[in-house]
Amino acid sequence: MEILITNDDGIYAEGISVLASALKKAGNVTVVAPDTQRSAVGHAITIADPLRVVPAKRNGKFFGYAASGTPADCVKLGIKSIMKKRPDLVVSGINLGGNLGYNVLYSGTVSGATEGALLGIPSLAVSLDTFTKPDFTAAAAFSLKLAGMVKKRSLPPGTLLNINIPNIAASRIKGVRITNQSRTSFNDWFDKRTDPHGNTYYWMTGDFKPSDADQASDLNAIRAGYISVTPIQFDLTDYKFIPELERWKLTL
Amino acid sequence: MEILITNDDGIYAEGISVLASALKKAGNVTVVAPDTQRSAVGHAITIADPLRVVPAKRNGKFFGYAASGTPADCVKLGIKSIMKKRPDLVVSGINLGGNLGYNVLYSGTVSGATEGALLGIPSLAVSLDTFTKPDFTAAAAFSLKLAGMVKKRSLPPGTLLNINIPNIAASRIKGVRITNQSRTSFNDWFDKRTDPHGNTYYWMTGDFKPSDADQASDLNAIRAGYISVTPIQFDLTDYKFIPELERWKLTL
Repeated sequence: MEILITNDDGIYAEGISVLASALKKAGNVTVVAPDTQRSAVGHAITIADPLRVVPAKRNGKFFGYAASGTPADCVKLGIKSIMKKRPDLVVSGINLGGNLGYNVLYSGTVSGATEGALLGIPSLAVSLDTFTKPDFTAAAAFSLKLAGMVKKRSLPPGTLLNINIPNIAASRIKGVRITNQSRTSFNDWFDKRTDPHGNTYYWMTGDFKPSDADQASDLNAIRAGYISVTPIQFDLTDYKFIPELERWKLTL
Repeated sequence: MEILITNDDGIYAEGISVLASALKKAGNVTVVAPDTQRSAVGHAITIADPLRVVPAKRNGKFFGYAASGTPADCVKLGIKSIMKKRPDLVVSGINLGGNLGYNVLYSGTVSGATEGALLGIPSLAVSLDTFTKPDFTAAAAFSLKLAGMVKKRSLPPGTLLNINIPNIAASRIKGVRITNQSRTSFNDWFDKRTDPHGNTYYWMTGDFKPSDADQASDLNAIRAGYISVTPIQFDLTDYKFIPELERWKLTL
């Protein structure tokens, strides 16, 4: 099995190292990841600038390819220019911080897996729901297990799995729930500040605005101590609203 | 009616000027747009850097606010820090180049409207399907008309309208079609080159890979000379695949 790994925390993050070690038990791993952190890049790609790719070492040994682009760039580069064989699986992660609800739209981690899915390859996004004191054990073990399942069962073309894992000891995880994307988002605002030269600038900040009405959601699974697996696809059409919109009888 | 306008071609692009002029007939227009082109940024937001906002003039008169961020940043800034009243409508465009099929995932234009919709405001993304010799007349007229319709009829929370307009004379446009997002994408690859210092770099390039099997799609509407209006929403859950995934009986 040929496996392409990327992330958005950058090639020197702990999560991608743990993931690569775990997935080596399932096949040949190629790492192509951003040379620095690229969080909240959405599904950005780099078209106006050249992309640089350099070999990256960890612990004195070759680890993978560091690219001057986004996670989506890395997946495109990996598949189209770096790997000799087309991968059987793309895995993005393990991200520090959950990717739940509408936040998947801003997520570089999910966008890496999105690019894999758009290119017709079964893809997973894996995120650990914490920013501090991560315990990647369960996330690594589950990624390996899921890689085997996806190889056996496959995924529909264009569908990826968005996996979120609670940051608790593997023994305390209650199980796995298949979930839907919740309506959770960030409630954000801007700090208006003045720089040392007297100029105004803004800095985005915010807090998590949980929406927990929906029992089957990604957020509720995580909160209850379960691994959340959400199948995601990219036809954004709001089919339910089409009949109403037809009644508007729009003309130029 | 309070209207917030953004784009991804930058505040000095022709399309946003034409749009602002047209929408002034519908209400008070505030322009907050990127200071330079931000195409293919996906739904990126800027959290690791400060954002600068400066007044921008066109033809010697104040036109709007130029921000050092993405279209999504601009919409957040406009709503949360710049406008005194919450807007009744967000319009992103008029983009040079169609935003059809899976390319909406990469689109800065659509992401501006996405941010508006996520913040609970009726939002439109408007794109003209050409990169050369644009005729914005029909796009401007239709944007104004649609602004009035949306005010009257509203949109479901979280749903935006993605509008694509063929680059032909208004008199030749055959009408308006309510469409779904097609499976159209770019077929892209990388040019591998060597810089003047002997270092390798890659440059992404590609061509349009039309998928026209689906008669009701955005692409087919444009090709047939119609304005395409696609309602878009952001619950990406692949509900159809959930029953199958449940049968995998996943465990840690």
